[in-house]
Amino acid sequence: MSKILIQGPAVITMEGPGRIYEDGEIAVSGDSIVSAGPRGSAPEGFVARKVIDGSGMVALPGLVNCHTHAAMTLLRSYADDMPLMKWLNEKIWPVENRLRPEDVYWGTMLCCLEMIKSGTTAFADMYFEMDRVARAVEQSGMRASLARGMVGVGPDARKAIDESLSFVREWHGAAGGRIKVMFGPHAPYTCPPEYLQQVTELAADYNVGIHIHVAETKDEVEQIHANYHKSPVKHLQATGLFKVPVLAAHCVHVDEEDIEILAAEKVKVAHCPESNMKLASGISPVTGLLKAGVLVGLGTDGAASNNNLDLLEEMRTAALLQKVATGDPMVLPAYETLQMATWKGAQALGLSGVGQLKAGMKADVILVNYQRPHLCPRHDLVADLVYAAQSADVETVIINGEVVMEDRTVLTMDEEEVMAGARHCALRLVEKE
Amino acid sequence: MSKILIQGPAVITMEGPGRIYEDGEIAVSGDSIVSAGPRGSAPEGFVARKVIDGSGMVALPGLVNCHTHAAMTLLRSYADDMPLMKWLNEKIWPVENRLRPEDVYWGTMLCCLEMIKSGTTAFADMYFEMDRVARAVEQSGMRASLARGMVGVGPDARKAIDESLSFVREWHGAAGGRIKVMFGPHAPYTCPPEYLQQVTELAADYNVGIHIHVAETKDEVEQIHANYHKSPVKHLQATGLFKVPVLAAHCVHVDEEDIEILAAEKVKVAHCPESNMKLASGISPVTGLLKAGVLVGLGTDGAASNNNLDLLEEMRTAALLQKVATGDPMVLPAYETLQMATWKGAQALGLSGVGQLKAGMKADVILVNYQRPHLCPRHDLVADLVYAAQSADVETVIINGEVVMEDRTVLTMDEEEVMAGARHCALRLVEKE
Repeated sequence: MSKILIQGPAVITMEGPGRIYEDGEIAVSGDSIVSAGPRGSAPEGFVARKVIDGSGMVALPGLVNCHTHAAMTLLRSYADDMPLMKWLNEKIWPVENRLRPEDVYWGTMLCCLEMIKSGTTAFADMYFEMDRVARAVEQSGMRASLARGMVGVGPDARKAIDESLSFVREWHGAAGGRIKVMFGPHAPYTCPPEYLQQVTELAADYNVGIHIHVAETKDEVEQIHANYHKSPVKHLQATGLFKVPVLAAHCVHVDEEDIEILAAEKVKVAHCPESNMKLASGISPVTGLLKAGVLVGLGTDGAASNNNLDLLEEMRTAALLQKVATGDPMVLPAYETLQMATWKGAQALGLSGVGQLKAGMKADVILVNYQRPHLCPRHDLVADLVYAAQSADVETVIINGEVVMEDRTVLTMDEEEVMAGARHCALRLVEKE
Repeated sequence: MSKILIQGPAVITMEGPGRIYEDGEIAVSGDSIVSAGPRGSAPEGFVARKVIDGSGMVALPGLVNCHTHAAMTLLRSYADDMPLMKWLNEKIWPVENRLRPEDVYWGTMLCCLEMIKSGTTAFADMYFEMDRVARAVEQSGMRASLARGMVGVGPDARKAIDESLSFVREWHGAAGGRIKVMFGPHAPYTCPPEYLQQVTELAADYNVGIHIHVAETKDEVEQIHANYHKSPVKHLQATGLFKVPVLAAHCVHVDEEDIEILAAEKVKVAHCPESNMKLASGISPVTGLLKAGVLVGLGTDGAASNNNLDLLEEMRTAALLQKVATGDPMVLPAYETLQMATWKGAQALGLSGVGQLKAGMKADVILVNYQRPHLCPRHDLVADLVYAAQSADVETVIINGEVVMEDRTVLTMDEEEVMAGARHCALRLVEKE
C-alpha cells in the first residue's frame, strides 16, 4: 500500500481561492489523501515509504479532461485547416472505418501517455472498441469515464447498445474503481428520440451517466430545429435524457433559455475551446453558463481537432477567449479557470472524492516545477499556472495513490514502445489511402 | 569562427510550403548558413568544428517576436483579470515608476532567457533604460530591434528624444550587427502630431524605422476620432509617419480603409493575439490584413499581459482565433502562421537575410525535438509545430552562427543567477506597495 509524503511544495488545495499553503505537505496512504496542509501537518506517527521532495514545486489536484476521443491521437495533424464536413467525410471517417482494435489500443496508450505527461489524471472518452480503450486506461494507471459512442441509425444502432451493455457490465468500477462507464449516444442529430429514450432507460437501469455532443455547430442547431422545431437542448430535455446525469460536450450554440434548462436539469458541460476554434464552430457562452450556475469542465476533444491533449493550454485558451468574446477582462479569472480543469471537471465526470487536495479525497496529485524562467518571479501561483505554465513543467503525477510519473518519467508504460506502436498503426492507416 | 554541421534533422526552410527536407543537413560558417538541404548537401571540403546530431529533430528558422516590453517579465502574474485602465493606473504604472536601471537589466535578462528557451532568436522591444536592455541583449546572444518608448507630452518628451538619439548613435548595428535601433513613439494618443513629425524626421535622418502601438483599443480609436476626426491609421498617415519603415503593434481596430492604407504604405503589423484577448481589447482582422497584402508578424506583448513570451503558443492562438473569428477553419493555416513567426517577422523588424534556412542567410536556427508523445505520430511537421508543440520541445538554438542553447542548456547566461536576480528586483518593486 502507498505511503507517500510530499514535502515542501506550495499546495493549491482547490478548496477556495485563498486555500494555498506556500510551504506545504501532503500525506498519502493507499489510494487517498491523509492530510494536506502546511509542512509538518502529516498526522503523528505517519511513516512514509516514499518521500518526495516538493521544494520549488507546486502541488495541485490532477487535471481532468472532460471530453476526448483518445484513439484519435493517431490522426493528430493528419488533416488540418479544413471545413468540418469535408474534414469528416474525406479524411477522418474513411480512416476511422479502417481502424482495427489494436489501433484503438495503441492510440489510447499514446493519448494516456501524453495526458499523464501533461498533468491530466482523469478523462472522459467516447469512442469504439472500448474494451481496448479500457485495457489501455487500466495499464496506464489513469482514471477515466468511458463511453462507447453510439449512432442511433443503421445497423450499428443495435450493435452499439449490445456493446455498451457488455462494456458497462464488464468495466464499470474496474481497475480498482478507476474506470467508470457512461452511455455515449453520439449527438441529437445522429440519434433519433426513441433511441435516446432507450439509452436513457438503460443508463438509469445501470445507474450510470450519459456522455453526448450537444449544440456543437450552427448546422446541428438548424437541423434539430428543422426536424423537431426545438433547440438541441430543448429537444434533449423533451426526450427525457436529463433524468440521468448528463455530460454535454461543447454547448457552443445555446441561448439563454437553453442555459436555464442546463442549469435546472444539472447538466454538466464539457467546454472544448480549442477544438471549437480550430473547426470554427463558434464560442461557447461559458461566462453565461457559469453565471447561471451550470457546472462547466474543460475538454480538449480529440487530437485530430486540437491537436494536443494539453489542459494547461486549454485553460489559458478558455480564459483568454471568454475575455475577448465578452469584452470584459475580468471574466473567467485564473482561479475560476483552474476550478474548471480540476474539481469541477471531476464533478462533471461524476467522480466523487476527486479534484481537491484534502484529507479523505482520492490521491490524484500533480507536482509542477516552478523553477522555470517563464514562471519567474512568482507573484501569483495560480495566474502563473493558468497564463504561463506549459505541460512540460509537470514533473510528477500521482493517481489513486500510485506514482504514475516521477521526474517526467512515466512508470506505467514504456514511452518509446508506445510511440513506436502508435506510429506503426498510424502509418498503416494512412498508407491505405 | 563557427563551423557547424547539423546532421539529420527535418529542415523546414520557410522558402515555400513544400520546401522541407525530411532527412536534412545544415552547414554554418561564421554568422551565416553555407548550405541547407538534404543530408550530404554541405559543400565539398566543409570541415565542421562542431557536429550536431539532429536526428529526431526538426530544424527551422529562429522565431521572431515582433512586439514586447522585455523588462515587464518582472511583472508577470503581478496583476491579472483586470480592466485595462485600472490595471495600468493602479498596478503597472506605479511599479514602472519605481523601476531602476538594474531592474530593467534583470527583467530583460529574464526575458531573453525565456525567449531563448522557447526558440525565439530575435525580438522587437519598446521600453526605457534602453542601455541596460541593449547590454542584456548583447550578453544573451540574441538579435533585437530596440526602441526607447517615447511619450510626447510632459517633461519626458524632450528627454525621450535625447535618449533615443544617444541610443541610436551608440547601439545601432552593435553586438556584431545583432542590435538594431528604432525610434519608439508610444502611440498616437500619447504623442501629439508635431512630436510624431519630429520623431519621423529623426528616424529618416538616422535611416532607421519606427515602432509604435496603433489602434489597440476601441477607446484609443474614439479618442483619436474625437481629437483629429480620423482613425488612428489615417491620423498617422497624415502626420507623415509612414514615410519611414513602421512596425505597428496591435492594429486591432482597423477598418477596410485603414487596411488599404497599411498595405499601400507598407506598414508592418505586429499581431499580439494573446495580449489582445487577455486585456479584452478585441480581435485584429489578420485575415483581412494578409489578404490585402499587409506584412504581419507575431508578438507576445509584455509578460504582464500574456503572461509568457512563448511564440509557439502565440502561433497556435493566432491561427485558432482567426478561424473562430471569421467562421472559416481554412484561414490562417499552419504554414502561413509559421511564416508570420519566422521570415515575415524578420522582415517586420527590418532584418535582412534573416528568417529562412538557405545559403547566405544569417544562421538563426532552432532544433525542435519531435521525439515526444504530443508530436507523435508525425503526419505533418508544420501542423505539429503550430498546433501541438510546446516551447520545451525546443532543444538547441543558434543565433548569428553561435550556439546559444544546446540540449536546453543556455550557454550565454547563468539561468539560476538570472532568475534570482529578476526575483530579487521583482520582490523589491512589489514590497514598496
